[in-house]
Amino acid sequence: MAKKQKVQRPKAQTPKGFRDYFGAEVAQRTEMLRVIAGVYHRYGFEALESAAVETVEALGKFLPDVDRPNEGVFAWQEEDEKGSGDWLALRYDLTAPLARVFAQHRNDLPTPYRRYAMGPVWRNEKPGPGRFRQFYQCDADTVGSGSVAADAEICAMLADTLEAVGIERGDYVVRINNRKVLNGVLEVMGLSDEAQRADVLRTIDKFDKVGEAGVRELLGKGRLDASGAYIDGVGLSSAQAEPVIAFLTSKAEDTAGTLDNLAAAVGDSATGAEGVAELRSMADLLEAGGYGPDRIVIDPSVVRGLGYYTGPVFEAELTFEITDDKGRPRSFGSVAGGGRYDDLVKRFTGQEVPATGVSIGVDRLLAALHMKGRLSTDTTGPVVVTVMDRDRMADYQGIVSELRQAGIRSEVYLGNPKNFGNQLKYADQRGSPIAIIQGADEVAKGTLQIKDLILGAKLAETATHEEWKERPSQFEIPRTDLVARIRQLLDEQGQ
Amino acid sequence: MAKKQKVQRPKAQTPKGFRDYFGAEVAQRTEMLRVIAGVYHRYGFEALESAAVETVEALGKFLPDVDRPNEGVFAWQEEDEKGSGDWLALRYDLTAPLARVFAQHRNDLPTPYRRYAMGPVWRNEKPGPGRFRQFYQCDADTVGSGSVAADAEICAMLADTLEAVGIERGDYVVRINNRKVLNGVLEVMGLSDEAQRADVLRTIDKFDKVGEAGVRELLGKGRLDASGAYIDGVGLSSAQAEPVIAFLTSKAEDTAGTLDNLAAAVGDSATGAEGVAELRSMADLLEAGGYGPDRIVIDPSVVRGLGYYTGPVFEAELTFEITDDKGRPRSFGSVAGGGRYDDLVKRFTGQEVPATGVSIGVDRLLAALHMKGRLSTDTTGPVVVTVMDRDRMADYQGIVSELRQAGIRSEVYLGNPKNFGNQLKYADQRGSPIAIIQGADEVAKGTLQIKDLILGAKLAETATHEEWKERPSQFEIPRTDLVARIRQLLDEQGQ
Repeated sequence: MAKKQKVQRPKAQTPKGFRDYFGAEVAQRTEMLRVIAGVYHRYGFEALESAAVETVEALGKFLPDVDRPNEGVFAWQEEDEKGSGDWLALRYDLTAPLARVFAQHRNDLPTPYRRYAMGPVWRNEKPGPGRFRQFYQCDADTVGSGSVAADAEICAMLADTLEAVGIERGDYVVRINNRKVLNGVLEVMGLSDEAQRADVLRTIDKFDKVGEAGVRELLGKGRLDASGAYIDGVGLSSAQAEPVIAFLTSKAEDTAGTLDNLAAAVGDSATGAEGVAELRSMADLLEAGGYGPDRIVIDPSVVRGLGYYTGPVFEAELTFEITDDKGRPRSFGSVAGGGRYDDLVKRFTGQEVPATGVSIGVDRLLAALHMKGRLSTDTTGPVVVTVMDRDRMADYQGIVSELRQAGIRSEVYLGNPKNFGNQLKYADQRGSPIAIIQGADEVAKGTLQIKDLILGAKLAETATHEEWKERPSQFEIPRTDLVARIRQLLDEQGQ
Repeated sequence: MAKKQKVQRPKAQTPKGFRDYFGAEVAQRTEMLRVIAGVYHRYGFEALESAAVETVEALGKFLPDVDRPNEGVFAWQEEDEKGSGDWLALRYDLTAPLARVFAQHRNDLPTPYRRYAMGPVWRNEKPGPGRFRQFYQCDADTVGSGSVAADAEICAMLADTLEAVGIERGDYVVRINNRKVLNGVLEVMGLSDEAQRADVLRTIDKFDKVGEAGVRELLGKGRLDASGAYIDGVGLSSAQAEPVIAFLTSKAEDTAGTLDNLAAAVGDSATGAEGVAELRSMADLLEAGGYGPDRIVIDPSVVRGLGYYTGPVFEAELTFEITDDKGRPRSFGSVAGGGRYDDLVKRFTGQEVPATGVSIGVDRLLAALHMKGRLSTDTTGPVVVTVMDRDRMADYQGIVSELRQAGIRSEVYLGNPKNFGNQLKYADQRGSPIAIIQGADEVAKGTLQIKDLILGAKLAETATHEEWKERPSQFEIPRTDLVARIRQLLDEQGQ
């Protein structure tokens, strides 16, 4: 006889950096996206769903924060008759596909084209704790309008969206800045070196953390940070750094004051003045729509990393406090961001097509809602009809059909019914509020036993042995009262 | 000066076999999936969302209808520190990932585990007309129950689901068969050759098309088909073919009759008898739940192509007539199918884990609902506030904010406002019901012009020149009546 070969079993494992989402996690995200889509629709935006797969050529290299952009995507080469074909890749965001869609369908789409899109995107990056290689984005963009009214509209919609999903007014702020103002500041500083400009932008981004004095140090010789490490400075003289400081500290009591300070900070730069004028227009439009600085505010410290932004940039921050890993209080932080990018469609068509949009970090926003207790936690399991007698499955099926037709979430226990304890353990694991029991005695009497599992769990924690033995959490009802009594008990339980 | 290089522009094109979905198409699918999830949830199923990406090893080779299973998926090799790592692939269905998920998380999941999943799957196949390489599936499965009560439950849920999305009772039927009955028939025929068994199964699948006489020919010497081509037969003798014919023609007036005929067809095969007993149990359970043969029926002609089915198989067919490409009437056909597959999890764990489930063809079901006029066609565009005076954007923004806060879908025209005709053309392209116009005259009077675009379109088709000139589709209202009058007009339009 031949030797038996050892069976090689596949590993049951998600690939590195991917995860599974179960039950309430999925339902809560779906519900949140439904609410967001409702707001976007009300604003006149149309849904768009493009495929997960694009040609590498169409996607381009716009991945943020990646030094080697080719390595940021999952890509493979098509095999066709001739051997090898196009390189394909999974999309890494929803903006690059939008640019492709608009260029491809521009003759059939209205201009301006307001669209929203929601779905997973993929990044071929080193996974880390809480950092996954597939995650959701939820975007809205207006393509084909150069008007800052389009940017203002996106900001207003972002505020409305946050309130619609359950972030209260006062718990968020949409902060607006303008790349042209930043460029104006760099211009009056006489900085033309790209690397040095990037260093200054990175420093500005740290203003929230290190404050004015810290930024002064970082723009100059450098700075000893909290951990004791020395951070090299940009190497500017104190005079050279002054416009940046003026810019960063330009936030005043009111919008008019901030705009005046910004105008001063950009000096005689035409680009800077254009940026300030755009911010002024946006503030006016938002004010007219009823969106005051309690919700949307001009804030010079907003930078946004992506290189493709060309005008207004914005960011939604949740301002309520949470406790960080080390137990220190800090504000929750950014959940959405975006801005104007006028060159993405041009890649395809050669013609300039202005565009602006926002992307919501779906998982961050869900986490925030979770912390605020604003997620509808319908995690109640089904009513479980237990199986006392394997031969009477049809009767149990009849019970559960009646409940389901009455809209009550319910099921028959479908495991091996031999051990009744396992059935109750299953109901417990499912978070079931009620178990229904019908043995031969109950059949003879035309009744059912109802077990209130929620009361039962409470009793198990607090009741004395005597109370427990009385089992007041279990009672008998006429079979004919099934739907009415179950509904009543669910109501009492607050389900 | 250096010569200017010719700019190489990327092609704005979806990869072959992929497509974009716009507006109502996306919204209708989302809504249908929401309704289906509601039914699944009521039946006690929990949502699961696994990643699009799995290891090739975990996916296995279960692709249906593909001779070279490796070529049916989009796959690529990970690059890690050592150079090359795991092969990854996009999932080709939702069942293979479920088997992996259950094997991976089985200690934390309840057993039986009822789960539903909805999302895109990918097939690396040659695309054709109406055949795409990314499409949606919507599955429900029960893992860890060997009871046919689990299969019966899935069939009942499938019937409820079809009615919930808008397929009327009488317009669908869920047909049930059992692989064990089929195997019993093959057993009594003395067929042990795998290839020949597969040929017989394929022939059974054609029963609906070619009828009893056709199947007899195909099981024997062969058959001249309608196009004049000769189809080779399986080569069985007339006597050998008899059990198949008995099996196929076993459908009787009622379920009891069908079951008796099937029992006769499987003769003394123990496997066959087991299959018939399972069908009988399912029929009893369904009857007890109120699902009679007008909705769920035992039908021996159901085969289902997939090799991994081991017991009950089922299929939902829409029975209403449509007209095919050549103008001939035919029934709409299958929109969902599934069955019991007891070996998929075993691949990972070595232990047998019984499972059963169904997959709904989302796009087919959407197409059916579209034909029946059952898709909520909220394709109405937004109310468009036109821009007569570029400097008064803030006022227009105020108008649109008021409308949106009242829940009315609306927007300001954000294109270049110079040409007013373009603004109306845009409103037309968006399917807008109403345009709002406010020029200097109206500002002075504190009014707005309201243009009823739906009446306007009707007039344009039928009105005389005189009627047209009176322009009754446009009228003036006080600015203060904005929300009330727009809402009234939308109601009148039936929006």
